[in-house]
Amino acid sequence: MEYLRVSEAQRVVLESVALLNAESVMLEQSLGRVLAEDIRANRDLPPYDVSAMDGYAVRSADLVQVPVTLEVIEDIRAGDMPGKIVQPGQCARIMTGAPVPQGADAVMRVEDTQEISANLIQVITTIKDGHDVRPQGENMRNGDVVLTAGTEITPGVIGILATVKITQMQVYRRPRVAILSTGNELEAINDPVDMNKIPDSNTYALMAQVQALGITPTLLGIARDDPAELERYLKLGLEYDVLLVSGGTSVGVHDYVRPTIEKLGVAMKFWRVAMKPGHPLAFGVLHGTEKVPEMDVAPRCADAFVFGLPGNPVSSMVCFEEFVAPALRRMMGHSRLFRRTVSARLAHSLKMRPGRTEFVRVQLTHDDTGYVASSTGTQSSGVLLSMARADGLLVMPSDSTGLAAGAEVTVQLLDGTAYQNETNIRE
Amino acid sequence: MEYLRVSEAQRVVLESVALLNAESVMLEQSLGRVLAEDIRANRDLPPYDVSAMDGYAVRSADLVQVPVTLEVIEDIRAGDMPGKIVQPGQCARIMTGAPVPQGADAVMRVEDTQEISANLIQVITTIKDGHDVRPQGENMRNGDVVLTAGTEITPGVIGILATVKITQMQVYRRPRVAILSTGNELEAINDPVDMNKIPDSNTYALMAQVQALGITPTLLGIARDDPAELERYLKLGLEYDVLLVSGGTSVGVHDYVRPTIEKLGVAMKFWRVAMKPGHPLAFGVLHGTEKVPEMDVAPRCADAFVFGLPGNPVSSMVCFEEFVAPALRRMMGHSRLFRRTVSARLAHSLKMRPGRTEFVRVQLTHDDTGYVASSTGTQSSGVLLSMARADGLLVMPSDSTGLAAGAEVTVQLLDGTAYQNETNIRE
Repeated sequence: MEYLRVSEAQRVVLESVALLNAESVMLEQSLGRVLAEDIRANRDLPPYDVSAMDGYAVRSADLVQVPVTLEVIEDIRAGDMPGKIVQPGQCARIMTGAPVPQGADAVMRVEDTQEISANLIQVITTIKDGHDVRPQGENMRNGDVVLTAGTEITPGVIGILATVKITQMQVYRRPRVAILSTGNELEAINDPVDMNKIPDSNTYALMAQVQALGITPTLLGIARDDPAELERYLKLGLEYDVLLVSGGTSVGVHDYVRPTIEKLGVAMKFWRVAMKPGHPLAFGVLHGTEKVPEMDVAPRCADAFVFGLPGNPVSSMVCFEEFVAPALRRMMGHSRLFRRTVSARLAHSLKMRPGRTEFVRVQLTHDDTGYVASSTGTQSSGVLLSMARADGLLVMPSDSTGLAAGAEVTVQLLDGTAYQNETNIRE
Repeated sequence: MEYLRVSEAQRVVLESVALLNAESVMLEQSLGRVLAEDIRANRDLPPYDVSAMDGYAVRSADLVQVPVTLEVIEDIRAGDMPGKIVQPGQCARIMTGAPVPQGADAVMRVEDTQEISANLIQVITTIKDGHDVRPQGENMRNGDVVLTAGTEITPGVIGILATVKITQMQVYRRPRVAILSTGNELEAINDPVDMNKIPDSNTYALMAQVQALGITPTLLGIARDDPAELERYLKLGLEYDVLLVSGGTSVGVHDYVRPTIEKLGVAMKFWRVAMKPGHPLAFGVLHGTEKVPEMDVAPRCADAFVFGLPGNPVSSMVCFEEFVAPALRRMMGHSRLFRRTVSARLAHSLKMRPGRTEFVRVQLTHDDTGYVASSTGTQSSGVLLSMARADGLLVMPSDSTGLAAGAEVTVQLLDGTAYQNETNIRE
């Protein structure tokens, strides 16, 4: 099999995975989920014309010539209903959100009036019909769809759900994800330190990447390089919607992962992608109907997906970002699948070997002209610190032999970058 | 009191709040928290020179003239220790991560060799000393500080913590946050629909904004416009680290929030900020030592902070983004306090009234030249749907009277925008 381009491999993955079924969730637990149903307004909002300001409900026709003195006939608070009709030469004191009384057609802000006595004010500016009045139904009209299935539930969406008094709703289920590390060289986190072993960081870095998507994964631990043990672990992992296996999928003679996965009925879709870091990366599907009966614990017969990720911690994390995260997000109903990108200028030159897309770990700073990207240092895929320090992944096209300092580049933002040190705004 | 500029008000807030104390957390629960201690390496990593590739450990001096045939003397897997010394004319088959045997000083990747027989290979390219060898301590050296206090725990950082086998660590505590809505006009989410009332969306939109920062807030409910009831609720809220009160802080005659807060001992730092949406916005501090005894439930005497947010749902959310989120993040130990910004071109002209910083809700698209921002429609602060649809807040400087289509603008990214629809990368 030839090396796939990154975008081809992404397409294969995203065409394979499907939206999961829906489940019910409480409003308080819904942040970040995706709606699986349309939501309709349950009334007009505002239910009638209301004031947008603290001020006086007036008849605009009274204010064609100013200054003019108006009689204050009542006080209308938010939550009150007006008791009187505003006649020519009259007005009503009104609070933000309170109903505009009959007769009045505009609101004069309190700052633009002068109190003459307890029930007399002077107005010195003219005003148009409808000024500072929020018309009935401006926000939403009874029965209209205000949120469609497929909407990601952000704080603003939760505000809308509360407005239409939805306390429970249908959202797409989260995938059940299992994480497995493989290799005799690995030392589990609770094992004593053995200088001849490598601490298993992949289990936890992948755990955190899955958690960052709102999913709590199951950690299966470490399978040794033994076909029977590996088979036992992989069988267990295939009971989940998605199994992430790190290590053991390269071309080396001691790698049993791919043959064992295939023996269990998984159809491998690809196992080579032209990217760095990232080699080897495998993806396979266990079709629901092909699952061996004793493995299919869930009542449904959905497909299971296996990602064979590199053993190198940085490679494993980068492959997760480019392939696994978009797949998990699609399964949860998201339409935004890929990492947010920003344009940046390169702080220094970069040399590349063409032929594969390269993801360079960079830190971002900001100057007058925008973002500046600089490498976090060594790009060795064994150096996880370079990933921990990175704000983003600079994407070098596969036909590039390098870039000069100052070149414009595209950077995918990583976790932790939703916020920044400086406001970078001009007031 | 004069209107404060946004940056001045942010400075007042951020100078008032302090870092909270530390607490212990398990690795599995640590994502997004901030380290309150330095973390040191517990060994050299790699513990010795290891192979960066699947291939053959060779003596680079043997390969000055190629092609050359080498004898394969052993097989070294990751986790194995080499049993032999590589002599001139010899090599060892080696897996990624396995120790480079004595005598060898470089690794030739398997793809660049040809197998002649079971224990003979032909090498056709030369190689430099150290090629594809990861030297001892490249990742980290025993005893070195690998992560400093103040580091936000991202997936990459969790990989490092697992590498040095930290299963539990000190992180800054999260603030306890209480949310209170005020106003006779409000209808609670479980109340029957009353056309004369306004559904309380602020409680839930603010809840979600707090949740998005990793904090589970306490919802106090709705206080009516009654001084005694308000005082009871505010007293309860001041037992928390941070109290968010929405509604009731304007200049209207029926607003009891500010006087009641001040009566309870809170020193108001400001109550007017030159921004839109956003009026009125108040901020106050209840100093720990000034707390009335029966209110101080916690053993410590830390300050409590009160934000009086506007009753309009959009205004309340924007004020949260600009003032409350940075404060909560500082208390949790973050150094990144402000929303990520991107540059965009304006899709259409925008008119502004100068004199205050304006935050315009926009959607972002992407074309060949970068981001394009367009208004989500009505900018009325009562229209929460415009916030739910927004990708970001376009910041209009206070001296601007408007911008033409195509103007370059700064947009703060909102929740839900860590991912995007298209990859926007060139492979």
